[in-house]
Amino acid sequence: MKGNNMIIGQSGGPTAAINATLRGVIEGALKSEKVDKVYGAINGMEGVLKENFTLLSDTFEQEENRRLLSQTPSAYLGSCRFKLPDSPEDGVYVKIFDIFKKYGIAYFIYIGGNDSMDTVYKLSEYAKAHGHDINIVGVPKTIDNDLAVTDHCPGYGSAAKYIAATVREIARDSAVYDLKSVTIIEIMGRNAGWLTAAAVMARSGADNAPHLIYLPERAFCVERFLTDIKNVPAGNVVVAVSEGIRDKDGAYICESAASGVRDAFGHKMLSGTGKVLEGIVRDRLSCKVRSIEINTPQRCAAHFASETDLNEAVMIGRGGAEAAAGGKTGVMMYFAREGEYNISIGTKCISEIANVEKSVPGEYISENGNDITGEFVNYASPLILGEPALIIKDGLPVHIAL
Amino acid sequence: MKGNNMIIGQSGGPTAAINATLRGVIEGALKSEKVDKVYGAINGMEGVLKENFTLLSDTFEQEENRRLLSQTPSAYLGSCRFKLPDSPEDGVYVKIFDIFKKYGIAYFIYIGGNDSMDTVYKLSEYAKAHGHDINIVGVPKTIDNDLAVTDHCPGYGSAAKYIAATVREIARDSAVYDLKSVTIIEIMGRNAGWLTAAAVMARSGADNAPHLIYLPERAFCVERFLTDIKNVPAGNVVVAVSEGIRDKDGAYICESAASGVRDAFGHKMLSGTGKVLEGIVRDRLSCKVRSIEINTPQRCAAHFASETDLNEAVMIGRGGAEAAAGGKTGVMMYFAREGEYNISIGTKCISEIANVEKSVPGEYISENGNDITGEFVNYASPLILGEPALIIKDGLPVHIAL
Repeated sequence: MKGNNMIIGQSGGPTAAINATLRGVIEGALKSEKVDKVYGAINGMEGVLKENFTLLSDTFEQEENRRLLSQTPSAYLGSCRFKLPDSPEDGVYVKIFDIFKKYGIAYFIYIGGNDSMDTVYKLSEYAKAHGHDINIVGVPKTIDNDLAVTDHCPGYGSAAKYIAATVREIARDSAVYDLKSVTIIEIMGRNAGWLTAAAVMARSGADNAPHLIYLPERAFCVERFLTDIKNVPAGNVVVAVSEGIRDKDGAYICESAASGVRDAFGHKMLSGTGKVLEGIVRDRLSCKVRSIEINTPQRCAAHFASETDLNEAVMIGRGGAEAAAGGKTGVMMYFAREGEYNISIGTKCISEIANVEKSVPGEYISENGNDITGEFVNYASPLILGEPALIIKDGLPVHIAL
Repeated sequence: MKGNNMIIGQSGGPTAAINATLRGVIEGALKSEKVDKVYGAINGMEGVLKENFTLLSDTFEQEENRRLLSQTPSAYLGSCRFKLPDSPEDGVYVKIFDIFKKYGIAYFIYIGGNDSMDTVYKLSEYAKAHGHDINIVGVPKTIDNDLAVTDHCPGYGSAAKYIAATVREIARDSAVYDLKSVTIIEIMGRNAGWLTAAAVMARSGADNAPHLIYLPERAFCVERFLTDIKNVPAGNVVVAVSEGIRDKDGAYICESAASGVRDAFGHKMLSGTGKVLEGIVRDRLSCKVRSIEINTPQRCAAHFASETDLNEAVMIGRGGAEAAAGGKTGVMMYFAREGEYNISIGTKCISEIANVEKSVPGEYISENGNDITGEFVNYASPLILGEPALIIKDGLPVHIAL
């Protein structure tokens, strides 16, 4: 008997929108006449292998719970860092498809980033090769915005909005004293500078901060950086920098400085990129300097998510469920942009996407590599529009947990 | 001729509510028949001494600008770290009151924390002793909430709300993988633990995080801390800790570890309390661990301010202008709480307030010093209620700047 149940999993680093996508998948599945039970795999593929499932259809029949899901950051189902073996001969594939059969699974939806699309690719190839009639669909999410094919990734808009708002606030904070100062804001992104680029939107009529922006897409030179700072006319210089900036030899700035240093207790000192640059500016420019790492809040600050992002995340999740129910497999859902900002969703063969990393293109970075262009602002501005109406209790946004 | 003009200054560390207080003072002054021109001193007392003034009455006739002022974090007028000399014989006093006379000043309102109240105290004592007919009134602000007499300080509620919401989000983020982990969240507060205590409000039905909370009011013991972590039943332990925790000998934890250590470039490595504890946990408990410094956003995240805090900040600012116009001098405005949560404002002689620091009282800290009690929650919960309707442009809150 062919099953007609669905399993949904979440994987990779959490975002403020990945649960909105889960909501969309659940809603698409609940609406479809082809889907019966909707299981959630706890901790992604790990949950599949342990048969650790939760029945989502029950909890999320209620609209209130679906709304709470949308505004809860991080992965409701938990996540994993699980890589399927390259060889389809590995026993784990047999095990997975036996479990799928046992639970009557006809549809498997995996919400995640690059690594998760690798899983979708391998499972769908295996299913095809072994005649398993299971539709396997990937739905993208990543704050890094580095997936190929799609115009942008759910989760990026909320992170970008939070970063821009926070950089603007830090810029106001840094301008408060009448003295020369440098404030260095470290933003996530090991290889792609999409998140750091978003800092440019913090600029307003009142304030041109951040004055300097450095992405990992360009080699970072300490001497040029110091010259750049000296050339900023403002007294309070604000710098946005990707954690992943590297020198011309490809060495991470954060690693070059701290390697092998231990504190008084003998613990290895790990220093972030911002802290390293802070030390350099203090030594070389002798002015007030501080560094601020925006840190995890940039991927989980659901209290200031982008409504556009969350709506699109629900939409693409729903689309994923519909695509699977409609017979698609081995595909990832993606966004296409037309005209000013009309977003449609489509499916793309997963082999075009898995393991491809999309960097910030050259035309979004200024020629001298220390600023972001207006083309980027045109690209990113629509993604951060709108603030969702939050369910608040005792002054704080309410989350839903397993 | 006796003047009837007013100077307003802002001083000390910025907050998300200090401009709402400025709005209140301006509104009180604009309404009063006794006040003519309203000057803002740029960078507090520094601006007074340099005669660096802006005419506030013009800009803030418009309600739109007053609304923008309320939602702009940090000090609109700029701030300073200026301490008046102890000796009233110092020439600076003569200079200040000459300037007051030159600009026809009858009222001086200073918005700030502990140091600023010291300024109010000294100026009002000097005025009294030398027969200057100028009413000098202090209006409190500080995220640290450590001013005596007042039930709480404007700015604290917004910081507490942002901290609680952010800790709740980080807790969700930290629970995403199925493995033992420790997340250490470092919160501001060198001497008083009010901000760190606010993290307790992050707890919800779904999640008991943060599981451990340490304030500077209690001596910190590394061994007890490690035992506390082991005793937490949850797999993903979340710890909130004040930057200012000290050991039983009074040495800051953050200083003990990093003293004298230099990185590969020869820069002194400065490590925060969270980073130090992260290193200790990694070495001793061999589990996944990370530390997150909430950093400046806790004092400038106006995008998620407390409406109660902002409304009260306007109210106490207005009260300050009215008190000065009504003849009060040498006083600080304060909040009194009655019943469940009825807030009234009053004036208190500045000598009772200046240079007194209010710590978190014993009944708000659990007996074993690693948690916060329900009494604190009763105290702090009303302060974080409500979210102001923000003026947003292109997806981001708009600020107003000089």
